[in-house]
Amino acid sequence: MNQPSLETLRQKLDETNRQLLELLSERAKIAQEIGNLKEKQGIPKFDPVREKQMLTELVASNKGPFTDDTIRHLFKQIFQASLNLQVTDHKKQLLVSRKKQKEDTVVTLGDDVKVGGGSPVLIAGPCSVESYDQTRTVAAALKQAGITVLRGGAFKPRTSPYDFQGLGIEGLKILKEVGDEFGLKTISEIVDPAHVELACEYIDVIQIGARNMQNFELLKAAGEVRKPILLKRGLAATIDEFLHAAEYILARGNTQVMLIERGIRTYEKATRNTLDISAVPILKQESHLPVLVDVTHSTGRKDILAPCAKAALAAGADGVMVEVHPDPATALSDAAQQLNIEEFGNFYAQVRESGLLG
Amino acid sequence: MNQPSLETLRQKLDETNRQLLELLSERAKIAQEIGNLKEKQGIPKFDPVREKQMLTELVASNKGPFTDDTIRHLFKQIFQASLNLQVTDHKKQLLVSRKKQKEDTVVTLGDDVKVGGGSPVLIAGPCSVESYDQTRTVAAALKQAGITVLRGGAFKPRTSPYDFQGLGIEGLKILKEVGDEFGLKTISEIVDPAHVELACEYIDVIQIGARNMQNFELLKAAGEVRKPILLKRGLAATIDEFLHAAEYILARGNTQVMLIERGIRTYEKATRNTLDISAVPILKQESHLPVLVDVTHSTGRKDILAPCAKAALAAGADGVMVEVHPDPATALSDAAQQLNIEEFGNFYAQVRESGLLG
Amino acid sequence: MNQPSLETLRQKLDETNRQLLELLSERAKIAQEIGNLKEKQGIPKFDPVREKQMLTELVASNKGPFTDDTIRHLFKQIFQASLNLQVTDHKKQLLVSRKKQKEDTVVTLGDDVKVGGGSPVLIAGPCSVESYDQTRTVAAALKQAGITVLRGGAFKPRTSPYDFQGLGIEGLKILKEVGDEFGLKTISEIVDPAHVELACEYIDVIQIGARNMQNFELLKAAGEVRKPILLKRGLAATIDEFLHAAEYILARGNTQVMLIERGIRTYEKATRNTLDISAVPILKQESHLPVLVDVTHSTGRKDILAPCAKAALAAGADGVMVEVHPDPATALSDAAQQLNIEEFGNFYAQVRESGLLG
Amino acid sequence: MNQPSLETLRQKLDETNRQLLELLSERAKIAQEIGNLKEKQGIPKFDPVREKQMLTELVASNKGPFTDDTIRHLFKQIFQASLNLQVTDHKKQLLVSRKKQKEDTVVTLGDDVKVGGGSPVLIAGPCSVESYDQTRTVAAALKQAGITVLRGGAFKPRTSPYDFQGLGIEGLKILKEVGDEFGLKTISEIVDPAHVELACEYIDVIQIGARNMQNFELLKAAGEVRKPILLKRGLAATIDEFLHAAEYILARGNTQVMLIERGIRTYEKATRNTLDISAVPILKQESHLPVLVDVTHSTGRKDILAPCAKAALAAGADGVMVEVHPDPATALSDAAQQLNIEEFGNFYAQVRESGLLG
Repeated sequence: MNQPSLETLRQKLDETNRQLLELLSERAKIAQEIGNLKEKQGIPKFDPVREKQMLTELVASNKGPFTDDTIRHLFKQIFQASLNLQVTDHKKQLLVSRKKQKEDTVVTLGDDVKVGGGSPVLIAGPCSVESYDQTRTVAAALKQAGITVLRGGAFKPRTSPYDFQGLGIEGLKILKEVGDEFGLKTISEIVDPAHVELACEYIDVIQIGARNMQNFELLKAAGEVRKPILLKRGLAATIDEFLHAAEYILARGNTQVMLIERGIRTYEKATRNTLDISAVPILKQESHLPVLVDVTHSTGRKDILAPCAKAALAAGADGVMVEVHPDPATALSDAAQQLNIEEFGNFYAQVRESGLLG
Repeated sequence: MNQPSLETLRQKLDETNRQLLELLSERAKIAQEIGNLKEKQGIPKFDPVREKQMLTELVASNKGPFTDDTIRHLFKQIFQASLNLQVTDHKKQLLVSRKKQKEDTVVTLGDDVKVGGGSPVLIAGPCSVESYDQTRTVAAALKQAGITVLRGGAFKPRTSPYDFQGLGIEGLKILKEVGDEFGLKTISEIVDPAHVELACEYIDVIQIGARNMQNFELLKAAGEVRKPILLKRGLAATIDEFLHAAEYILARGNTQVMLIERGIRTYEKATRNTLDISAVPILKQESHLPVLVDVTHSTGRKDILAPCAKAALAAGADGVMVEVHPDPATALSDAAQQLNIEEFGNFYAQVRESGLLG
Repeated sequence: MNQPSLETLRQKLDETNRQLLELLSERAKIAQEIGNLKEKQGIPKFDPVREKQMLTELVASNKGPFTDDTIRHLFKQIFQASLNLQVTDHKKQLLVSRKKQKEDTVVTLGDDVKVGGGSPVLIAGPCSVESYDQTRTVAAALKQAGITVLRGGAFKPRTSPYDFQGLGIEGLKILKEVGDEFGLKTISEIVDPAHVELACEYIDVIQIGARNMQNFELLKAAGEVRKPILLKRGLAATIDEFLHAAEYILARGNTQVMLIERGIRTYEKATRNTLDISAVPILKQESHLPVLVDVTHSTGRKDILAPCAKAALAAGADGVMVEVHPDPATALSDAAQQLNIEEFGNFYAQVRESGLLG
Repeated sequence: MNQPSLETLRQKLDETNRQLLELLSERAKIAQEIGNLKEKQGIPKFDPVREKQMLTELVASNKGPFTDDTIRHLFKQIFQASLNLQVTDHKKQLLVSRKKQKEDTVVTLGDDVKVGGGSPVLIAGPCSVESYDQTRTVAAALKQAGITVLRGGAFKPRTSPYDFQGLGIEGLKILKEVGDEFGLKTISEIVDPAHVELACEYIDVIQIGARNMQNFELLKAAGEVRKPILLKRGLAATIDEFLHAAEYILARGNTQVMLIERGIRTYEKATRNTLDISAVPILKQESHLPVLVDVTHSTGRKDILAPCAKAALAAGADGVMVEVHPDPATALSDAAQQLNIEEFGNFYAQVRESGLLG
């Protein structure tokens, strides 16, 4: 007998494909029915024991030529696809997802500063609030430059317990006083779930720091209040983990969340961290939340802040954060990487000049 | 005139060296006097403004051939050395440091299981406490094998807010009941500072997880109780940061701290994390605290747990932790990487056979 | 009409599963026939254009409930499984793979030193061959200690073009002379494909360094000779890339290949690189080739070499490599990390004492 | 007797500082004399044995209060500073360094395309040259869009020896033919030192790939010709290693070198590599060579190429490279990440629109 031609075999293959498609669709419908029934009865949809049984039976019936491993693999894919039909796609369901909400979230700081979906914002201020005078000096300079948002750490998470830990509540009070005087919105990091509510009285934005990105108790507390949250990416967090951390906040009802890339930890030590610039367009695509970049912590180098800020904006960031101190040499934290006021002036001029600030 | 010979020049250099040494020692004594005076007057010892002034003056007087930058660098080194004399060396001062305490810390779990400075310990149990039955089944198997410490998660920090978050206090109660029945010591992770005290009633060791290694509020709470703490290395924490995190606990008075390496995040994805085996001897050298290795989270692969556990012990680890579940396929977390009871038997046999368990 | 029960629906699902299995097997057979035909006609088996057409048609016929993306995904899995049947599994085919050869490859250095499948070997010697005297001093000490393999760099790949680049061929000659005198096997790195053949006259093992792991021209040249090759893992190479690099050598007919882990580049700077200890059992599982560990370059720290060597052996390594220099302080390369002869004695005593050297 | 006041002690300290400064300057002059003498006598300037002796003597004479370690540290700094005076600063000496050459190097491709110090260039083309038709199709489209430089791989370094390895010399000939027809400059990777000279006959720029960044034999060969070189950063190379690799080329006399960042290997897998955007301004500061960014390999994702290209230009890059293929689905390499011609059109429009292309 003649060997069938390539053409004949391909037609047979096409026919089998069609039959497979039909059978897969039929199977999908049954799976949906099962899903609906389970929904009504309150039974969990994923049933690993049942799945295991099905795989065992299929492998037992397998006569080749596919290996048992291949059969197991293919059916796991089919089971997964069916499960997705039942529970609807997980990612689609995330509140932070662009699939859930098409339009950009606009976060409002205080009553008038908007972040997201419009002109980018520039946030500046000292690493730590060290005194009323120090804070006031920076604030005055920022105000004069046209900056609208002032950052300053009151609770400082420090590697060593013996390093300056911040002024605490006192620092928040200084921020409030200075913010009120100059009409600046204020941002400060909170590290203890128990302080979140209290902090709302003093500041306009609660920052959750990189070290606490997966401190889920803190995220839950941030979800319970109705203040904007600035969530920093953890220093070795994946983009997926970052988005899920934000989801903890949104899941509790607080939708005013801003994401901020601050560099990731890599082998390269020319910079303190490696600014993951790709994270900006990826986060903008995957989520409707505003995305900012902290150029100071990303680089830890004053000499490349301006080009990195421009890169962030060109990549689509909704804002940039930078540290400014009246006298960096005497700063109680991060002395080497804070701009002094004159340097900030130069930095700001370069960024503005690029036209990327909108 | 004749050019001086190399020998002559070297003698001049040696003489200058001796004069420099004398002058440096003299300077050090003055710095000590200043330190003592500041101590009495309660003035901070590091005075960046004064330091800046001194540098400015020195550079102004510099006539070369060293550049101003070199002069600045050399004097900064001298200032730093003088400051170290005043405040005594920072690292020497750390409570976790081997320089502070020569002999190994022995941590006692419950009233009889010792960790550190002797035979290594093997800690096993499920990722999550899912039910009384599941926990009891594992515990019975472990007890029979001769294991003395049972781990099980009650509060599960999960990437997604929609994943199984653990049974909470209920889980701790199950651990207590099962631990009491079989005479096993119990370990469970606590994630909220507010739960630390309560947890002491139910479990023998409080674990602080990798995500919370720099949740300083939690570390402080752990420092306030008098239960052993098992502190996991953060997934991108340096060894230095790890030791400083432990220092937060000791600084509050709790000296019963065990360090546990659990793999670090790298580019290599053949394993879930990269087991940093060098961290074991480094931590043992730098600190007197017991050092363990979590082979399950380090590798995320069941097929290499035994060689990795042996490597950990050969490197000097005081113990190894491994996840065991009666039916991993149905586990509510970490399904793929938990050993079933039979696999655990094989694992344990291989490790014992190596003679490395002592 | 009554809603069917869960039981009924599950029976329908099982039935559909069985039909799918049958259809998939049928499809697999047709694909095999096509593969055979293509084999005869010399047509490439993977035909992306045809695959694209099939997917387009299937999606056009899709009436749900699976989304088009799901259909595309499922059929891609099926196509891939069918292709694997045709070309046989890629990984199975690798010459380095344990699936291809079950028993351990034993590499013979010179005529009597065996590496792989038996007692582990200890390789020692200076970073660079600097002179006849220096090399002879080390060799004498190693010989006395019972070491059988001497390493020494003659062609040194250095970060800077202005650093000591090795003695070149002269260095190989010194190695030969000293090796012959003491009856030691010799290893040296070759960096230029044009030198591989020549080197075979002088040394017993050709090392390919980390920087050249994917210098495929060099790998091909190493595959053409019949000398043992010691292939170092690249400093950011995955295990998969490492095995494929070795495959380049085996594919040219040289089966005497040894793999050597030498640390990977990570954020952690307490060690020069991070010794990826898990790579040892993974490589041993995936490949039949001997696996060694270079503890000197993995750690860059003399103070933890012994525990790391023990860890390597406990994890299953077939050997350990370490750098020894008569006077490390004056070494022309890697001054800080080479053991002096006394330190090597202590190191070797500790490793031997552990019983792990067999 | 009265304790001296803080003011008095500070005056004494200032006086000691001045004496130290004088003594250091004196020592520096002697060191210079020694350096000159050694220069004449052809003796190496760094003499580790002598340095060790000096340290031993100083420590022997040390009576405190500085510890011996501190004395050793301080004098090592002083020795280093003196040595720097003798050999002049190493970094200053690098030919690639901005300190050596203030003005930007402008590399000329063919006879008219300029890269560096002016308008940024856009380089595009397929991953591999697969056929004359494929290359011609892309070239025609690029020409029409106004692109001036065509890239295409002829020698493909592939992870597996069984993957498509490129058309070799045949590929270079196609590039030449197509380049000539459309008046496009051409770039192709060379992997074997023996091919460098030959390649100069066919292409306008020789690319050295990421895997070969520290293939020093290849770098040396590239230094011997007088064609522009496009040097890719290694996938885990530091910026310092990257610059030193370029130095190998310049040291041989070829000054027409362009640096290209192509992403580094990190834990983050949302992108194929992590585009290290900070490397752009750092390289521009440290070196006078043109700096480009390969957005395709940096990200491995078509959906974020435009924002990443804009970020690269905003950060100061002198050009961007991107892969374009007439039918990416059928490409013999990198199928998933190449733009098709329409997608390239959109990409180019977005980048042009930003105004960043100058």
